[in-house]
Amino acid sequence: MKKEVSGFSKLSKSEKIQWITESFFKDPNKAKLELSKYWNSNHKIQQKHDEFIENTLSNFYMPLGVAPNFVINNKSVTIPMVIEESSVVAAAANSAKYWSKRGGFHAEVLDVEKVGHIHFLHKGKKKNLHTFFEENKNTFLKSCDEITSNMRIRGGGILSIQLNDKTNDLENYFQIDIRFNTVDSMGANFINSCLEKIANSMKKLSLKSNLIDENDLDIIMSILSNYVPNCLVKVWVSCPVSDLDENSGFSANEFAKKFIQAVKISEIDPYRAVTHNKGIMNGIDSLVIATGNDFRAIEAGVHAYASRNGTYSGLTKASIKNNIFTLEMKIPLSVGTVGGLTSLHPLVKWSLELLKNPNSKELMKIIGVAGLAQNFAAIRSLITSGIQKGHMKMHLLNILNQMEVKEEEKIKAIKYFKKNTVSHKEVEKFLKSL
Amino acid sequence: MKKEVSGFSKLSKSEKIQWITESFFKDPNKAKLELSKYWNSNHKIQQKHDEFIENTLSNFYMPLGVAPNFVINNKSVTIPMVIEESSVVAAAANSAKYWSKRGGFHAEVLDVEKVGHIHFLHKGKKKNLHTFFEENKNTFLKSCDEITSNMRIRGGGILSIQLNDKTNDLENYFQIDIRFNTVDSMGANFINSCLEKIANSMKKLSLKSNLIDENDLDIIMSILSNYVPNCLVKVWVSCPVSDLDENSGFSANEFAKKFIQAVKISEIDPYRAVTHNKGIMNGIDSLVIATGNDFRAIEAGVHAYASRNGTYSGLTKASIKNNIFTLEMKIPLSVGTVGGLTSLHPLVKWSLELLKNPNSKELMKIIGVAGLAQNFAAIRSLITSGIQKGHMKMHLLNILNQMEVKEEEKIKAIKYFKKNTVSHKEVEKFLKSL
Repeated sequence: MKKEVSGFSKLSKSEKIQWITESFFKDPNKAKLELSKYWNSNHKIQQKHDEFIENTLSNFYMPLGVAPNFVINNKSVTIPMVIEESSVVAAAANSAKYWSKRGGFHAEVLDVEKVGHIHFLHKGKKKNLHTFFEENKNTFLKSCDEITSNMRIRGGGILSIQLNDKTNDLENYFQIDIRFNTVDSMGANFINSCLEKIANSMKKLSLKSNLIDENDLDIIMSILSNYVPNCLVKVWVSCPVSDLDENSGFSANEFAKKFIQAVKISEIDPYRAVTHNKGIMNGIDSLVIATGNDFRAIEAGVHAYASRNGTYSGLTKASIKNNIFTLEMKIPLSVGTVGGLTSLHPLVKWSLELLKNPNSKELMKIIGVAGLAQNFAAIRSLITSGIQKGHMKMHLLNILNQMEVKEEEKIKAIKYFKKNTVSHKEVEKFLKSL
Repeated sequence: MKKEVSGFSKLSKSEKIQWITESFFKDPNKAKLELSKYWNSNHKIQQKHDEFIENTLSNFYMPLGVAPNFVINNKSVTIPMVIEESSVVAAAANSAKYWSKRGGFHAEVLDVEKVGHIHFLHKGKKKNLHTFFEENKNTFLKSCDEITSNMRIRGGGILSIQLNDKTNDLENYFQIDIRFNTVDSMGANFINSCLEKIANSMKKLSLKSNLIDENDLDIIMSILSNYVPNCLVKVWVSCPVSDLDENSGFSANEFAKKFIQAVKISEIDPYRAVTHNKGIMNGIDSLVIATGNDFRAIEAGVHAYASRNGTYSGLTKASIKNNIFTLEMKIPLSVGTVGGLTSLHPLVKWSLELLKNPNSKELMKIIGVAGLAQNFAAIRSLITSGIQKGHMKMHLLNILNQMEVKEEEKIKAIKYFKKNTVSHKEVEKFLKSL
């Protein structure tokens, strides 16, 4: 069979699977069976999931776990987490418990502004462009009245519109910069629709204008930005240094000092900062996915924010003031609790109900806390027992499953490795010794 | 029921579900049922997935789709993609087809070096520390001989070890900087285990050394870095400008020029760069997840790389030279094709077989191409029809499903919206008109 295919997207699901398995698999029937093992037995449920994207062949399972015992602004929260990496949920649960006895997590939304741009070139007189913009900006805004009406009723809409002169960076380059409040929706479709309307309106008005020549105006593109430094949540934990006592072989004071050094290192060394922030994102993405939000958008916005001062840097700060230890983080999070997958994916609905159906501001707080909890857990491990102890303990089950070990051997191995270092080799050795 | 819980992780799955649903849901039975709808009917399969992480309650479905017709270094490839966002798979398939007629995609691995650090403070004489390091570095390396032996057989291992003086950035701060080749594994456990062994060895040797005082040495942590600027793949497409002709209302030349402007904007404007790169990551993460790799690690490494020159910047470059249009990207990707989930998750195995069981270098190339394909598709839409047309067309099914529309109405709506602009409002209007 040829490996190029025409009209693939128009084939039925079974025709697609037929072509794929016969073209690329040694044993097409086995490959078909493997896909079908993951289908939902309920046809209606399966069809719903098939239609989320194009060319769906099966459901990729990501574990949905929960981390209980979070206290956030004095309220008890159990956090749903979708993540494939072992030890992330355990770390979250440990942090949650640790801080629930020390005042819990605190969170505050600082701002919720989102942003989009019409990127264009203009080679005429700058002064005329500015006048054109000032004369027409209200017409631009009116051009998307129909789109913004619902959003305005809910308390959102367009916050501001301005012309940015970027010609110092790139010849003839300008932006129409528009700020939005999208209330409880993530707002990507809303923002892009507004921008495209305004770009159209701008083009039309340029044809009638004496100020600018249509041939001088070249609209390149209209698109929201996932860089949202003004859609920001602040989260923190705080307690007397003496309360940081634990069974780690350090005094509370030593622990606090070492913790602060670890955070300082992440502030100045990009190699460390990247992994420091990766740990934070373990917590954030788990919750972003569980609540039907777009983790690529969040990731891009967060990491760009981490580099905003010219050096890629860690996102948390730790300090001791008047014998009070504080770990805090400001992080941009543009998330929605309506629209998109939130009302389509039954387990997203489930996760949102577990969180008491938060609005987008409340969700920002919970997601931020999940990130901070992960950061605390990671640094706590790193500066005490090392990261591998917890990691490999959690990974033991995966190794045993991979080796297809029997249930009774599994139980023995789990017992043995409570006191011994886990590695692939050591597990093999132990199993042979049985 | 109380919302704090003790010993939660030790409860059975059904006990966990009992507590969660009764503590947080209005209708606990409905909440239980919702979780169970997503369980696999095969107990063994379900148990395997339950044990990937802690406190697993159900399987979160992410659609597994495929994008056919990729040509990469003259070979036909169909790419598996795990992604919840509509239009990403369609965009990949469109790019694949477009470039299959124009020479296909090209890819080359530039380097595969990975890195980890022992972060420590030393307040004694610098010269003595350097001497201590030089005298003992071979012993450090030997201390992890047992861990590295298998890796060395496979052609990898420790490439280099050096002492970095970081005291200009932070008082008394040094690093032992170790470079690795982890062959076909992602290598996180391997690297961290080596680092912890060496840190231990360093501590022990410091006790016996006359050069440094154990009280002057404070090892903060040992950890791999997800910043891997030397684990780099280069991908590109290239064809005569005249071959870029298409039915977009632009000449091939206009299209190429506009495309290059769009890429230039992403190079200089962080607001645009973030979304430009987010689009690239749509393609990359889809394949990273499908092949059982860790997308948080990849995301962190890629975005930090995008900010390496002091300003967060777009990852692709476009040019015309001698009437040849080229779009290219260099991107750090540390991925594995053995270890981790690769042999545990049946659909990861399936995805790897679809890709002809690549080694890690081959996988780097395919993942890089998936990112570049996505970038081409996004910019092509943005500079021609706008992003919303394709987006909303793909989103139409989701809107219809959300409204729980009957099959025959769905078909009518799909037909109608082939020629009309999709929006929530317009879909509602159309359905009322039926």
